Amino acid sequence: MRLVFSYSARMNPEVPLTFEAARARVDAYISQFKEGYFPPLLMLARLTEETGEIARVIAHQNGKTPKPGEDVGDLELELADLLFVMICMANERGLSLERGFERMMTKVETRDADRWTKKENL
Amino acid sequence: MRLVFSYSARMNPEVPLTFEAARARVDAYISQFKEGYFPPLLMLARLTEETGEIARVIAHQNGKTPKPGEDVGDLELELADLLFVMICMANERGLSLERGFERMMTKVETRDADRWTKKENL
Amino acid sequence: MRLVFSYSARMNPEVPLTFEAARARVDAYISQFKEGYFPPLLMLARLTEETGEIARVIAHQNGKTPKPGEDVGDLELELADLLFVMICMANERGLSLERGFERMMTKVETRDADRWTKKENL
Amino acid sequence: MRLVFSYSARMNPEVPLTFEAARARVDAYISQFKEGYFPPLLMLARLTEETGEIARVIAHQNGKTPKPGEDVGDLELELADLLFVMICMANERGLSLERGFERMMTKVETRDADRWTKKENL
Repeated sequence: MRLVFSYSARMNPEVPLTFEAARARVDAYISQFKEGYFPPLLMLARLTEETGEIARVIAHQNGKTPKPGEDVGDLELELADLLFVMICMANERGLSLERGFERMMTKVETRDADRWTKKENL
Repeated sequence: MRLVFSYSARMNPEVPLTFEAARARVDAYISQFKEGYFPPLLMLARLTEETGEIARVIAHQNGKTPKPGEDVGDLELELADLLFVMICMANERGLSLERGFERMMTKVETRDADRWTKKENL
Repeated sequence: MRLVFSYSARMNPEVPLTFEAARARVDAYISQFKEGYFPPLLMLARLTEETGEIARVIAHQNGKTPKPGEDVGDLELELADLLFVMICMANERGLSLERGFERMMTKVETRDADRWTKKENL
Repeated sequence: MRLVFSYSARMNPEVPLTFEAARARVDAYISQFKEGYFPPLLMLARLTEETGEIARVIAHQNGKTPKPGEDVGDLELELADLLFVMICMANERGLSLERGFERMMTKVETRDADRWTKKENL
């Protein structure tokens, strides 16, 4: 697989992962294949699947016994699987998780500023 | 709200958003409040809700008529709401979306390298 | 709307609701409309939405404060909304929830018979 | 396992499955075990998992290639797994899917009566 940027820099703590690099890496991966991005409703089905996988791990960590032969699962990896689908979804629609994050945080910091109990002396 | 880094730089295209900055911003937001992070199963309930919100928008864009008075919704913002819950989930458990992304992409690029049809002359 | 069976009998405790009556009632409702059943992936989007609505109610009942102006929600009605989509999904594919229930219970009662702690003297 | 009612009648087409019989059968199954019903948030995690399983099957039937070694799945059984969790959820809270269905259909038949295009000469 040919990619236009070096992967080796990514886990270097001096070169932290940006949303743009994650977007570009997923796009480079998908763009190798003739199939390309799934259409939106199929991508949503994938999103729902991955949300279900996260649910399985969290259930296992909080009171549900795994079936015989089933392992507890790896939450970090399941979150990353979900993130992969979200990046695909944004890429396919021309949306930006980075811009969305900014818009959402502005909303949360404003709208919900008094929804919870502020710590004193903060 | 006291935050240790400047927000104004974030949307500057020369200072792109990193996963670490997103993690820290969510943590700064949550840490203001006595309630802190929700416990894992409640956080999962929030994740499921937000996945449902994404489903609603994508359904509206793909054949479902909104109810009277209901708008189509904003997919970028709904993706960001889901991302917020994922960052909370990772923060509360001490997991890293950045590390998870690296692990997942390594898996995907290896395991699924021949799952789809490669474009020729790539 | 013309339906071939009487509704008035349904909530009569001497005429309890069968899965077949529920299936037929949903089919009669949908069959009035030219649009008919949604295709499977759009129906799945609806299913995901309704699962999200259930999550919202259960989150509200278990530690999440509703947003200003938002009510706690009605779990019985949200479960019924999900059931509606499931019946649509089964009807559209020619599947039977009744037969599925039988197959699933046989599996559960056999496979999981020793997964949990039996009460003594049962 | 000892149950207080006969199962043999259930698949007899002359004795169709009622929601009450399904409720009672699930309750008899769960009541054998000391663990009993899961608490609501854990049950919701199970619901999310099962919704994800349905998504996986529908994705497989609509354009997603199963991973090597993975089968397409059985939608009828996955719907039944979801139904099982819903019945547990209703039982644990003292809610009735039968009553919910009636309430929901009344709402749908009224509220959405003109949302879609009526067939002519119905």
